[in-house]
Amino acid sequence: AGTLARPALAQSNPKVSWRLTSSFPKSLDTIYGTAEIFAKYVAQATDNNFQIQVFAAGEIVPGLQAADAVTNGTVELCHTAGYYYVGKDPTWALATAVPFALNARMQNAWMYYGGGVDLVNNFLAKSNIYALPCGNTGAQMGGWFRKEVNTVADLNGLKMRIAGLAGNVLAKLGGVPQQLAGGDIYPALEKGTIDATEWVGPYDDEKLGFYKVAPYYYYPAFWEGGAMLHLMFNQQKWNELPETYKGIVKAAAQAANCDMLAKYDYVNPQAIRRLAAAGAQLRPFSQEISQAYFDAAQQLYAELTAKNQDFKTIYESMTAYRRDAYLWFQVAEYSYDTFMMVQQRGNKL
Amino acid sequence: AGTLARPALAQSNPKVSWRLTSSFPKSLDTIYGTAEIFAKYVAQATDNNFQIQVFAAGEIVPGLQAADAVTNGTVELCHTAGYYYVGKDPTWALATAVPFALNARMQNAWMYYGGGVDLVNNFLAKSNIYALPCGNTGAQMGGWFRKEVNTVADLNGLKMRIAGLAGNVLAKLGGVPQQLAGGDIYPALEKGTIDATEWVGPYDDEKLGFYKVAPYYYYPAFWEGGAMLHLMFNQQKWNELPETYKGIVKAAAQAANCDMLAKYDYVNPQAIRRLAAAGAQLRPFSQEISQAYFDAAQQLYAELTAKNQDFKTIYESMTAYRRDAYLWFQVAEYSYDTFMMVQQRGNKL
Repeated sequence: AGTLARPALAQSNPKVSWRLTSSFPKSLDTIYGTAEIFAKYVAQATDNNFQIQVFAAGEIVPGLQAADAVTNGTVELCHTAGYYYVGKDPTWALATAVPFALNARMQNAWMYYGGGVDLVNNFLAKSNIYALPCGNTGAQMGGWFRKEVNTVADLNGLKMRIAGLAGNVLAKLGGVPQQLAGGDIYPALEKGTIDATEWVGPYDDEKLGFYKVAPYYYYPAFWEGGAMLHLMFNQQKWNELPETYKGIVKAAAQAANCDMLAKYDYVNPQAIRRLAAAGAQLRPFSQEISQAYFDAAQQLYAELTAKNQDFKTIYESMTAYRRDAYLWFQVAEYSYDTFMMVQQRGNKL
Repeated sequence: AGTLARPALAQSNPKVSWRLTSSFPKSLDTIYGTAEIFAKYVAQATDNNFQIQVFAAGEIVPGLQAADAVTNGTVELCHTAGYYYVGKDPTWALATAVPFALNARMQNAWMYYGGGVDLVNNFLAKSNIYALPCGNTGAQMGGWFRKEVNTVADLNGLKMRIAGLAGNVLAKLGGVPQQLAGGDIYPALEKGTIDATEWVGPYDDEKLGFYKVAPYYYYPAFWEGGAMLHLMFNQQKWNELPETYKGIVKAAAQAANCDMLAKYDYVNPQAIRRLAAAGAQLRPFSQEISQAYFDAAQQLYAELTAKNQDFKTIYESMTAYRRDAYLWFQVAEYSYDTFMMVQQRGNKL
């Protein structure tokens, strides 16, 4: 081939060997697998000179300590969700999803073109972290309930496994948010120690078998309209990377970001059919509960923006885009989908 | 840095210099720019050893001959839309979008995980082409009309600039599809030589000023629910690439695919506001026209699948996924967006 002529003389692919701790177990193969896809893209772009070894949650540090392990340099990077760290500062959640925020496409638009990536990194620099978007689940399901919930009164005293700001909102409505690791949820739900749990969506939820003990499957997760994962890099380690490696990592992260959502969008349609066949009872949240949840979230945001400047700065950037985005998406995108869904219900697809 | 130790001894980034012909002018900066982003990602991943020079439509060959230039080896690759080549075979359109097909997220899911990429490539191999997804516009607008159209009777004799299978469907409803290059549309619309035109969406349409001469801006484009662009490679040139370069190109294309949709989703919301302020009259297509268009499209598909095995194979793969996907997307994704749009209309966002 005439175009594959002379080998270059300069060698600029230095050997780098990094460890990535994932916040996820291998059983969540879509999310966990995204870190492996990212690592593969980086390796192939560097002729295997930049090796990133992926460790599942618990192999180096527990899943919810992944970012800490990056901050303190135990590992060079992690694959995690910012909202796991709201205990440090609620601002972390804005990297992933907060109640009534953006859908997955809007989250990409705001992150890549609306300044989101830079704003998040200005904040995370305080924790010695540089972060890049890497994956999205799409809108999640609201979770599994042992009994139907129709009114706000039904939430009173409801013990639900739900994390972060979503739990704070539930508490404003009288619910009792619980923190439980993945493996502990099913037995707690079976015994009635908890009344409800949220997890991810059909494909992941199916594996944990919740439909057997809490058959009412509510939607959507108003707290996760498009939950975005991130790669988080130790700031010194990131700074030390050659510029060409930084570029490779950014492109690989963006490719893996696209890949994860595509996989969920392919496997969830099949899983929801299987769950319905197995007895899951699909239920939309009532208008009363939805609106109460929205209003309670606005109260929470008023409190947070009043006292937390970091939160305020990023939140206002996101909501400024959200106002315009939800106006535009009503036009072409939503009307297209609506028409197609009507045809689907008419059995014409 | 301890991790940046010894330089590798083997050099495996051979010099490659390729030319990419885009089907788009530089003025369509989002679509055209996606090819440049892709080329940048490839260059940085190969330490600038793999250089892809991007040429605008007309610099090497006209935009609608980009794929031919790849088939015959005039250039190594192009960035184009498959549906420009329906004159060769309607199967080409399935790579991009056909009326009432998938939205942008579903198109990614089907392409990357539902076998779409392989099916498209099995077909394009006959034209000496290997193709990868690289960009999406999202659901497009239905176009600009000099007069309102409310009934199917209003389409009778309507001269509309619209291409490909969408034009065939319009013809079934009595319309007269026209082919016009971008620069010729405005004067034709101004003089009334044509009655309507479709183009892309708010951001691109605004530049051409159609609102001044055809103020009724209809939505959505039922023929482009999520129009996907592709990179198309000359098969021999692709085969000659080292495996590591093939991997780099695949990841770079997937990253650029994500990037283009994110940019459109960021710039369109601002553009639709400006267009409305400038006098564009937003109109949804009536239920009568929408359903007639759908039914006419189904007739066309019945004809095409009866006589074209390539079309049938790919179309049936796409529609099998579409049935399940439009069921699932009604649940979490659509109900989330619907609730948010109600809040937007209530001025609560």
